[in-house]
Amino acid sequence: MVMEQRISAITLGVADLDRARRFYERLGWAATGPTDEVVFFQVGGFVVALWGRADLAADSGVSDSGGWGGITLAHNVRSREEVDSLLDSAEREGGSITVPAGETDWGGYHGVFADVDGHRWEVAHNPFWRIDDDGRTLLE
Amino acid sequence: MVMEQRISAITLGVADLDRARRFYERLGWAATGPTDEVVFFQVGGFVVALWGRADLAADSGVSDSGGWGGITLAHNVRSREEVDSLLDSAEREGGSITVPAGETDWGGYHGVFADVDGHRWEVAHNPFWRIDDDGRTLLE
Repeated sequence: MVMEQRISAITLGVADLDRARRFYERLGWAATGPTDEVVFFQVGGFVVALWGRADLAADSGVSDSGGWGGITLAHNVRSREEVDSLLDSAEREGGSITVPAGETDWGGYHGVFADVDGHRWEVAHNPFWRIDDDGRTLLE
Repeated sequence: MVMEQRISAITLGVADLDRARRFYERLGWAATGPTDEVVFFQVGGFVVALWGRADLAADSGVSDSGGWGGITLAHNVRSREEVDSLLDSAEREGGSITVPAGETDWGGYHGVFADVDGHRWEVAHNPFWRIDDDGRTLLE
């Protein structure tokens, strides 16, 4: 069977669901529907979920050694000034800056923050990728 | 600054770029543009990138302890039969099943495979979430 070229959801394992939810809400995200066990955000055509990391590990059939697992998320913005500003906001709301804003070797400008559970978000201005009016990032 | 409720890219760190690219291509995905260092897939309104895990760790300002990092991706399909079929395909192409297909306690049906680098993909039939004609997963 062919796998359609899409993702339905990304679940971020968290240590404290309320703390994680508040972090994203303070940055401006709005959750869909309250639940005590999981938080859903409609993000374009898919869902970002927050769920207890131990539950997610069990549900994914994985032994959790802790730490980073080789996945980094990216949020592209429309100018270098927005990179600086969003990194400042993330730090103020309890994230930590793991790569300060600066020029990249591919001609862009970026920095990286870790959310309250250590999940990495690159914040980038990439002049070669288009962000359309709906916030979609398009390669061509 | 408010963070718009969207993701621009998800980068999966890989040990062998060609091997990882072939895995996703054999499942049916088509990359945009060949490069020797990174592979991009346009996935709905964002980008899935494959890149060397060590490079990604350095670029993300993180010390890589290996293993899983608390993020699981999901690919929802339209029936239980499609869950079984896609898990079979993933295993045949070099992935491994970490959770065999079965009923979930929330009323759906799912299984989980690990890609060739251990990144977890839940394959699910969720009767409560709608998949529209464009493949978008909508909470309401």
